[in-house]
This record gives sequence, C-alpha cells and structure tokens, in this order.
Amino acid sequence: MTTIDQNYLWIERLKFNEAGLVPAIAQDYQDSSVLMMAWMSRESIQRTLETGEAHYWSRSRAELWHKGATSGHIQKVKALYYDCDADALLLQVEQVGNVACHTGVKSCFFNPVRLRV
Amino acid sequence: MTTIDQNYLWIERLKFNEAGLVPAIAQDYQDSSVLMMAWMSRESIQRTLETGEAHYWSRSRAELWHKGATSGHIQKVKALYYDCDADALLLQVEQVGNVACHTGVKSCFFNPVRLRV
Repeated sequence: MTTIDQNYLWIERLKFNEAGLVPAIAQDYQDSSVLMMAWMSRESIQRTLETGEAHYWSRSRAELWHKGATSGHIQKVKALYYDCDADALLLQVEQVGNVACHTGVKSCFFNPVRLRV
Repeated sequence: MTTIDQNYLWIERLKFNEAGLVPAIAQDYQDSSVLMMAWMSRESIQRTLETGEAHYWSRSRAELWHKGATSGHIQKVKALYYDCDADALLLQVEQVGNVACHTGVKSCFFNPVRLRV
C-alpha cells in the first residue's frame, strides 16, 4: 500500500523537463546572495524535504547528489519556494562553510561580464 | 565581412542546452531578492548587452522576449555574471515598477513549501 504524504502533493504540480528535472536556485538566507544554480529530480526534492539538507541531481555524474556530502559544505534549507509557472525552485539556505562552489568560493557566479555604459 | 565584438567572446564559452538556451536568474540589484528564472538564447544575450535591458527567450511563445515591453516592467541590467560551469547566468537588475512576475507581484517565487521541523 502506498501512503501519500500530504506535504509532498505540491511536487506533482511542478513541471519537470523531459529529463525529469527542474532548475533550482540556491540563495544564502542571510545575505541573499545567489550561490548556485542546479537541478532537482523528484527524488532529490523528497530527500531535501526529509533531511532538511539540499539534494540535487548531478547531470554530469547522473546521480543523486547530496550537496556537501564530501566537501562538508552542506546546505541547510531554511525556506523553499516554487515559482508562478511551477517550473523553477528557490532554496534559501544556510551555506555551511560559506562556500557553495566546487572551486572553493562562496558563489558559483564569480565571472562578471563587462556591460556597455 | 563579420566583425567580432570583443565584448561578446565570452558568450562562446557558455554551454547552451540542446535548444540553444541557458537558464538565467534575475535578482533585484538593490535588495537582492530573486525575482524570476527564465531562459536566454545567444540572441537574447546580445540584445541584453546592446540595450542594457533584459531580453529572454520565451519558450511558451517561442520568440525573443523583451521583458516588460508590453507591461512596462522592464529590467535594467546593472551586472551580469556567468557561473563556474558557464551554464547559468545571473542578472542583477533594476526592476522597473518593482514587479517582475506576470501575476503582478514582485517575485515569481511566491509559493512557499512547508518544511518539516
């Protein structure tokens, strides 16, 4: 018998892409900086809700990815939102170690593009 | 003869998906709130750089989308970053009207998910 957890019903509203993924934005819940953008599967969302720690789907490794499992730089989820079209997620997280990027810096968005004035 | 604008060379480093798009996050440059997540094509990036106003690719309408062209809620780009893997963009914008979402609210991420304690 399958029991349906009421907390998870919203997941069925999400529009997953053809690979079964939705884009997810991780934002520092304290200073609001955007840390990274990754992808979540149904399973990674469920694991995130169950554990309170961000889980993504690693497209390069094609596996469930418990962010920080090896580096220690886990993300404790403080708030989670889905957008108006239900095709993107926003995670507000406590970034342990203040490092989200695999390169060792806080945010993955460290490449500025020069804009015209 | 084709002239290559040096400012645009970074675009070739981006990893566009099979549809020729990269995910783009729009963030309010003043209060750092995440406004929306959309998709950009090469052309929409170029138009964004040329005009200083955010242009996306509308997947639903399958056309270049000058954000705010009809609503007036344009986004003036203050800073632009690409991430460590060159497969996502972050736009820090001045959101005219303080409304990014087509539903009339500031941010598209207005659906909170209940987390377990």
